[in-house]
Amino acid sequence: MRYSQLFLRTLHEPPSEAETISHQLLLRGGSIRQLTAGVYSLLPLGQRVMLKIASIIREEMDTAGGQEVSLPVLQPLDLWAMPPERGASRAEALGPTLFKLKDRRGRDLVLGPTHEEVITLLANEFAQSWRDLPQRLYQIQTKFRDEARPRGGLLRVREFLMKDLYSFDADEAGLDASYRAMVAAYQRIFARCGLNVLVVEADSGAIGGKDSQEFLALSEAGEDDAIVCPQCGYAANREKAEFRRETLPDEPEKALEEVYTPGPKTIADLAAFLNIPTTRTLKSVCYLAGGRLVFALVRGDLEVNEVKLTNAVTRAGLNGSDLHLATPEELTRFGSVVAGFTSPIGLDETALVIADTSVQMGKNFVAGANRADYHLRNANAGRDFRVDIWTDLASAYAGAACARCGGALVVQRGAELGHAFKLGTLYSELLNATFLGEDGQQHPMLMGCYGIGLGRILALAVEQHHDERGICWPRSIAPYQVVLCALGAGDAEVVRAADALYEALRKAGVEVLYDDRAESPGITFADADLLGLPLRLVVSKRTLAQDSVEWKLRTERESRLVALEAVVEEVVATYTN
Amino acid sequence: MRYSQLFLRTLHEPPSEAETISHQLLLRGGSIRQLTAGVYSLLPLGQRVMLKIASIIREEMDTAGGQEVSLPVLQPLDLWAMPPERGASRAEALGPTLFKLKDRRGRDLVLGPTHEEVITLLANEFAQSWRDLPQRLYQIQTKFRDEARPRGGLLRVREFLMKDLYSFDADEAGLDASYRAMVAAYQRIFARCGLNVLVVEADSGAIGGKDSQEFLALSEAGEDDAIVCPQCGYAANREKAEFRRETLPDEPEKALEEVYTPGPKTIADLAAFLNIPTTRTLKSVCYLAGGRLVFALVRGDLEVNEVKLTNAVTRAGLNGSDLHLATPEELTRFGSVVAGFTSPIGLDETALVIADTSVQMGKNFVAGANRADYHLRNANAGRDFRVDIWTDLASAYAGAACARCGGALVVQRGAELGHAFKLGTLYSELLNATFLGEDGQQHPMLMGCYGIGLGRILALAVEQHHDERGICWPRSIAPYQVVLCALGAGDAEVVRAADALYEALRKAGVEVLYDDRAESPGITFADADLLGLPLRLVVSKRTLAQDSVEWKLRTERESRLVALEAVVEEVVATYTN
Repeated sequence: MRYSQLFLRTLHEPPSEAETISHQLLLRGGSIRQLTAGVYSLLPLGQRVMLKIASIIREEMDTAGGQEVSLPVLQPLDLWAMPPERGASRAEALGPTLFKLKDRRGRDLVLGPTHEEVITLLANEFAQSWRDLPQRLYQIQTKFRDEARPRGGLLRVREFLMKDLYSFDADEAGLDASYRAMVAAYQRIFARCGLNVLVVEADSGAIGGKDSQEFLALSEAGEDDAIVCPQCGYAANREKAEFRRETLPDEPEKALEEVYTPGPKTIADLAAFLNIPTTRTLKSVCYLAGGRLVFALVRGDLEVNEVKLTNAVTRAGLNGSDLHLATPEELTRFGSVVAGFTSPIGLDETALVIADTSVQMGKNFVAGANRADYHLRNANAGRDFRVDIWTDLASAYAGAACARCGGALVVQRGAELGHAFKLGTLYSELLNATFLGEDGQQHPMLMGCYGIGLGRILALAVEQHHDERGICWPRSIAPYQVVLCALGAGDAEVVRAADALYEALRKAGVEVLYDDRAESPGITFADADLLGLPLRLVVSKRTLAQDSVEWKLRTERESRLVALEAVVEEVVATYTN
Repeated sequence: MRYSQLFLRTLHEPPSEAETISHQLLLRGGSIRQLTAGVYSLLPLGQRVMLKIASIIREEMDTAGGQEVSLPVLQPLDLWAMPPERGASRAEALGPTLFKLKDRRGRDLVLGPTHEEVITLLANEFAQSWRDLPQRLYQIQTKFRDEARPRGGLLRVREFLMKDLYSFDADEAGLDASYRAMVAAYQRIFARCGLNVLVVEADSGAIGGKDSQEFLALSEAGEDDAIVCPQCGYAANREKAEFRRETLPDEPEKALEEVYTPGPKTIADLAAFLNIPTTRTLKSVCYLAGGRLVFALVRGDLEVNEVKLTNAVTRAGLNGSDLHLATPEELTRFGSVVAGFTSPIGLDETALVIADTSVQMGKNFVAGANRADYHLRNANAGRDFRVDIWTDLASAYAGAACARCGGALVVQRGAELGHAFKLGTLYSELLNATFLGEDGQQHPMLMGCYGIGLGRILALAVEQHHDERGICWPRSIAPYQVVLCALGAGDAEVVRAADALYEALRKAGVEVLYDDRAESPGITFADADLLGLPLRLVVSKRTLAQDSVEWKLRTERESRLVALEAVVEEVVATYTN
């Protein structure tokens, strides 16, 4: 492709809207343009990268036993409004994130944010016996989610290309095999795209909770925190991560006593006021779910993890998707609770008390008194207050002890590129997707789902591969392999030599962008660096004087001269497949 | 791919919903499934065909200078609501065919039925000078149109894959070149897909009307009529087709006289009642556009062509998209008009009278009298009634004389696969997309748009290539090239030989579907015929007794034996690329 014909106009300054490096460089390099909030056009260079990513994904999905399909964007709302045995329907759970519309006959439709329902209906028709399983079906298709806060260019958008594969198996061993095949395929995909990826255990939700892993590209531009143990390799996202609580020294239970605490507003202030460590206090947070008061209790040095709490609430039979912090108005309905001094002691019987296991690992805590400006010393679970559910309710943090090995956990920032999830029988039971087993009985299929965001790969490749001058595309997904620059395009000899080299490279099957513009070396090189193709070749009077071409890798400072007669062969050796 | 693992279940009977052959065979062969009206999933076999069609299109678009982009589905309604200088906005013109929705912030969005607006905005940013032109930008992307009556499987749907290319040129010569390049590329695409296509002149609408051609696949399943002259090759769609009107013998104008015609309800009845040919009568049809009465007049032997009428109305400055038959209620507002006996004579001055040129090619016509049960003899244009616009207002028909050569026109049925259209400056003026010309002035870009429906290609390939037993895929788009059938899958020798052949073919790069099921020959062959792969190979005890394989083309009755040791080489010679 000749640069002069390419649909491109680079920008020297990053547009003010661009928050992240990838957003800036993709805008400046003419790969993307926003049409409306979180909705982007891909221009020729961006589209070429996207097609390469799609091609790598297709190859790996096919290798892993995937069969490609294409499922509709438009779906009847009915499919999303079906209530599961417990919890909310998917339409309720997604709320305003689900794009809804009506057709000309007034029928309710949604724009598919994902395709579990549609594919499960098809699996139910096509896979009727254990002989028809396993099935692994995937598509590369546009998804729609009305995110509240689109940001970061392609990092969080409302319309995006996604590869989603759904596996259907007859038994747990089959599901395990499908899951392992997908996790392995994902690792190959990200490696081929040149991405540095961390696989972390992820929360699998309260329903159908089975194995679940996220693939995070490490980057400060991400929105996800991984909790990692450098000692044993344990890695989980913040919602899921486990850790070992410090056990306080054992001591006899002392008598409950009220203490006047007029000043402190926070646990830290309270601990300082009483001259005790925060580990000797209790932190309580009041939520509501389905109209019921949910009282969450952790030790004062920890934080309530709302995902873990949601899971506990759902397991208890309440509507987890309705869980929310109780407002002061809502709290007044529960007379015994005094905001700011809430206490598990003397709580209403209808409240559901869920406590972190850390509350069992000490004695004689300071707790609220449910009375303004007062706390209670020597509160002890069992003796002084009821706990309905003991569970892991607190968030891990940097420096906490690894649950596996006791090593000090660290936090790493990343962006989610993909997700693997064992759904179990959640959707097959909801949609009655069964198969005839070897035992002659009908069984629900065991499902898994596995998603990759293609635009995320594109953006994170830029986040991980750039320098101060522009993008440094990994070879596998670079829009072109080579940029050929003719310096001094007014010089007939240079033009003749560069034209000839361009044609020779094209004929040899090299993807080459030929900068045939009559621009200054400064602009030519700045654009080449910004666009970030792996190899830069320069033809100029100076190089031709030595019958050669300048050869420079985007990721290296140094260049060298290569003889004109040898250059095509050398390029072909490395830059064709 | 082993048949036993393929996500497929063939149906022996066509589902009752299937109206057309392609719909029946694609459902029976497990290529497609409907999710909701006019919205389909593509299953693995259908998706493989679609990917091949997309690949052919990409190659030809790139060869023709196209650069691939990807434009959003979600578009702000504002872009569609902009009023052009005359006529309706696109949102008004599309009416309920345009899917509309609101996002979580209440902003109005549409699902793109096409992308002229979005690409024009981009072209305005990226192509700023005549040096940046021409540009030819395309995408292969899902479009949405809420059709009133989806039908025929993939023939008319509401969500569909389309290739749309937009050309931007600096002058008419450039637009001509882009247009010719696209028409040539389209002919190569359809030829490569094995389709028998007729290129017809098409109506280009009243605004920005320039060259426009449709590519029709000849098929009785289609919805479009082409009017073709077998003598000179002229071909146009029914909306556009021109024809030569029969000139009636000249005669002196006679005096107007009223005649009592109590019985006849139709032109044919009236002509019979008066014992004259229908060519001696006038047919008038009353429309409204923008509140104004539009009186359309053709000779009694012809029919009003509403597309031609819409164009005439729009050229006259009225809102053509509002044109509709006047209801009896609306007609009462125009006192002089008597339904059933409408006449151009004595019409209200505010009416716009548009007459077909045929009304000039005769004298002394019988017309309505605007009085119940009466007609007028010897009506003559100019003397007795006013005509505001003379134009081509009538539809061509089988047997009419070709406007070019006088040959007898014939009608051929087809389905539109693609459309090429010179838009001129319609959108560039609307969106102020200009470029700096060589003359130092700003000029609006000259645009063309060129669309192909990929699902239409898939369906029409089946309509044109099938027999009573199933599909006969053209090689270029067949989901697999070869079906290998193991007959007697219980026999170890057969299984061993078939397995070995399957592996050898796969290793040689042949796309082979291996029917490894233990089904009867009847079912095996019926499924092979239904699925329609170009070559069928059969391994059985009988063929192995002769160290050979049965070789049969899908489109031929006869089979032959090929030596086992030679078969891979012979397959590779013809069935790999």
